[in-house]
Amino acid sequence: MQPEKFEFGNKLPGLVDRIVASYYSDGRTHHIGKAYLPARAEIIDTIELLLELLYPGYFGRQNLNEHNIGYHVGELLPKIGERLQRQIYMALCHQREVEGKSEDEGPCCAEQAREITIAFLERLPEIREILAGDVQAAYDGDPAATNLHEVILAYPGLLAVTVYRLAHALHELKVPLLPRIMTEWAHWQTGVDIHPGARIGRNFFIDHATGVVVGETTDIGDNVKLYQGVTLGALSIPKDERGRAIRGFKRHPTVRDRVTVYANATVLGGDTVLGSESVVGGSVFLTSPIPDYCTVSIKPAELRMRDRERRGEKDYIPHFDI
Amino acid sequence: MQPEKFEFGNKLPGLVDRIVASYYSDGRTHHIGKAYLPARAEIIDTIELLLELLYPGYFGRQNLNEHNIGYHVGELLPKIGERLQRQIYMALCHQREVEGKSEDEGPCCAEQAREITIAFLERLPEIREILAGDVQAAYDGDPAATNLHEVILAYPGLLAVTVYRLAHALHELKVPLLPRIMTEWAHWQTGVDIHPGARIGRNFFIDHATGVVVGETTDIGDNVKLYQGVTLGALSIPKDERGRAIRGFKRHPTVRDRVTVYANATVLGGDTVLGSESVVGGSVFLTSPIPDYCTVSIKPAELRMRDRERRGEKDYIPHFDI
Amino acid sequence: MQPEKFEFGNKLPGLVDRIVASYYSDGRTHHIGKAYLPARAEIIDTIELLLELLYPGYFGRQNLNEHNIGYHVGELLPKIGERLQRQIYMALCHQREVEGKSEDEGPCCAEQAREITIAFLERLPEIREILAGDVQAAYDGDPAATNLHEVILAYPGLLAVTVYRLAHALHELKVPLLPRIMTEWAHWQTGVDIHPGARIGRNFFIDHATGVVVGETTDIGDNVKLYQGVTLGALSIPKDERGRAIRGFKRHPTVRDRVTVYANATVLGGDTVLGSESVVGGSVFLTSPIPDYCTVSIKPAELRMRDRERRGEKDYIPHFDI
Repeated sequence: MQPEKFEFGNKLPGLVDRIVASYYSDGRTHHIGKAYLPARAEIIDTIELLLELLYPGYFGRQNLNEHNIGYHVGELLPKIGERLQRQIYMALCHQREVEGKSEDEGPCCAEQAREITIAFLERLPEIREILAGDVQAAYDGDPAATNLHEVILAYPGLLAVTVYRLAHALHELKVPLLPRIMTEWAHWQTGVDIHPGARIGRNFFIDHATGVVVGETTDIGDNVKLYQGVTLGALSIPKDERGRAIRGFKRHPTVRDRVTVYANATVLGGDTVLGSESVVGGSVFLTSPIPDYCTVSIKPAELRMRDRERRGEKDYIPHFDI
Repeated sequence: MQPEKFEFGNKLPGLVDRIVASYYSDGRTHHIGKAYLPARAEIIDTIELLLELLYPGYFGRQNLNEHNIGYHVGELLPKIGERLQRQIYMALCHQREVEGKSEDEGPCCAEQAREITIAFLERLPEIREILAGDVQAAYDGDPAATNLHEVILAYPGLLAVTVYRLAHALHELKVPLLPRIMTEWAHWQTGVDIHPGARIGRNFFIDHATGVVVGETTDIGDNVKLYQGVTLGALSIPKDERGRAIRGFKRHPTVRDRVTVYANATVLGGDTVLGSESVVGGSVFLTSPIPDYCTVSIKPAELRMRDRERRGEKDYIPHFDI
Repeated sequence: MQPEKFEFGNKLPGLVDRIVASYYSDGRTHHIGKAYLPARAEIIDTIELLLELLYPGYFGRQNLNEHNIGYHVGELLPKIGERLQRQIYMALCHQREVEGKSEDEGPCCAEQAREITIAFLERLPEIREILAGDVQAAYDGDPAATNLHEVILAYPGLLAVTVYRLAHALHELKVPLLPRIMTEWAHWQTGVDIHPGARIGRNFFIDHATGVVVGETTDIGDNVKLYQGVTLGALSIPKDERGRAIRGFKRHPTVRDRVTVYANATVLGGDTVLGSESVVGGSVFLTSPIPDYCTVSIKPAELRMRDRERRGEKDYIPHFDI
């Protein structure tokens, strides 16, 4: 017998009260009584409109040609601008609220939001140019890619890099909160976690992509290629006297030009520099710098190899007696 | 020339028959002729409504204040209750069907579903309190986090832990199937795979998150921190005489309080205990217990380092001669 | 003060011109002035309809029974056929465009698309039969699975394998571009990256799944099981005189029947064969073949274990002095 409409009986008022009380007893997990917060859903919409602008014909409207492309862009840009301005405004006001300032203190958020939005949109041609290099690098670096179309339509690594470049531009324009929401959305979608504060050069390719982490203070040169599962991370995290992580200093590696880092390698530390043209082999764990033109690989595995007798249908997976 | 409407010619009846015949020849991949199955789409809707309740103002409706918050909660709770009750009902009836019992055997599913739903909702204030600790742990443990808002709005690791805590509550209330559908949805979204049967303490933080696996019989204490790619997994899986994995016994590790496990470490086995305050370094592979206050790291890599001559424009990526 | 509608001032025309100019200065990142391109959104819709056909009652419409199942299939098939034919047509015309052929050269794309679509649909009963084996393998191989329903409803690994089998069928029918878009969508969703060109036998199970990579020229036998983070990848990628990766030859491993590869193992190279019944342990890095019935595991970790003094509330995470 299907249950009828859900019946709380007489429990609903008490439960409502206890949940509301839980809000007021701890301010850390609610946003009640405050005015400003970026809306994640609109930020994601904005990213999707930006993808249509960055890769016309691949995302959104097809059948574009020289006659309608101007109108198409002229329609997209205001849509993007309006949403972006609103969310940047929210982020700036939110920041002001978090810092305890009143609405009269500091610059006018609405005016700032407009200026930042225009500055960001004016950077889009440059961002497109850089992305063309990233697309080319993906094709050149992956024997499985049949053409550039496949890269743009299908590769999650390229989506992650695209969103990073947009977020990084906003980060450089000092927009709070939004850049991280954008890159974490891309992380959600693609499994690639690039902090918007990282500095990444041209022709950057992440192959297979899942599991890559590029930390906040990472510096990456041109023509760098990473494989799945690569971590460019922090080595140690000193804490303050209250046990909280200290923020801001360089704690992630520097990667020079034309470096390749193979699958599941872990490279850690603010002093760890991968010299130009160097190669870090798969599964390497590295916490000190290597020179230019250097190949680093793990020693021959010294694997234990054991022949098992056949046990017929009772075969079971043996212990790893380590 | 664009193709016209798709024309099967005379092949459609034959193809329909062969596909339907494939259903009846093997019952393992269809759910025809049976009444009860949880609906994944409604379960996902329910999770999203729960997120609005757990983190008001961050998900769903913004502009909440002390005047409207009571009404907001009073509206959300019945929506959640109705969907949850329906899906729990489906899961219980499905379980009864799977066990071959008739509708008269055992307790009434509709009544059970209602009781479980109310019991679950009454646990939400406690779950919120625990999540506040998880949010704080994320901020304290990550130098890249600027504030708690960023954690709640952006961090996939926090979403995974949130869904785990909800699913675990349902698991403890003995709801079949639903908990696993919920955590696997979170796995889909975030790359983090936590079985709802795992037991996890307070102030739990998964940084970067992608690739983490926490097995069904894992026990984790308070103030534990995991990085991306960490596996808390099973060491060996004995099989029965039909070659099927034996279910139920403890085969995943125990992690005590204030342990940190760094990126891509693999910790396996039901007897493997990580003592309190211990640290497991990146890429460590560990299948035996370690004591309290212990740091385990892999030996200096014994990397092979090789300088390559410059080969001008003909450089190619060298073999790994291992 | 909320920002008003976004005001470009006099900047909009200049910005539109500069963005359009960026399109024409570099053809690599736009698809303007060309007629044919598969539409990712419709391909994803088609996958979802196929899931309803492959696993009736689990996806899409519930309450199916012997009376309505024939009509249900008879309704689904033309929907799938129409979308698939259209996208295959687009992919074939796109390919012809990319190769610089005129519309009169080569076979008629519309007729080809129809024939391929019918051939693909006629293979669905066989694909369903193979998937039943994959579902069973997941249940048999995972102690945490309570029944087959859980596998079909929840396991991202199964979704990835399902989409791979569909994409591989299209790949064998020589459809360009579509197969890769499909498997990369599954990669997006599940964190599993299986190239549609890979050849995979029956009863294939990927447990936990996130981070698995199966390369284009991989061959896998029957009853193979992979865990999360496993890479079956390429060892070296020779380049041509222009520095581009050479495409097409076998560069990924061969895995024989009844092999298990544990979490985060990396197996590379076209000459690397994993003999039947062999076991590759967790975190192993392997670039040479192993015989039948062989177990390979990493040597006891030679971990450094260090006891740390308790430092009260000032504890910090120690350096990894490597």
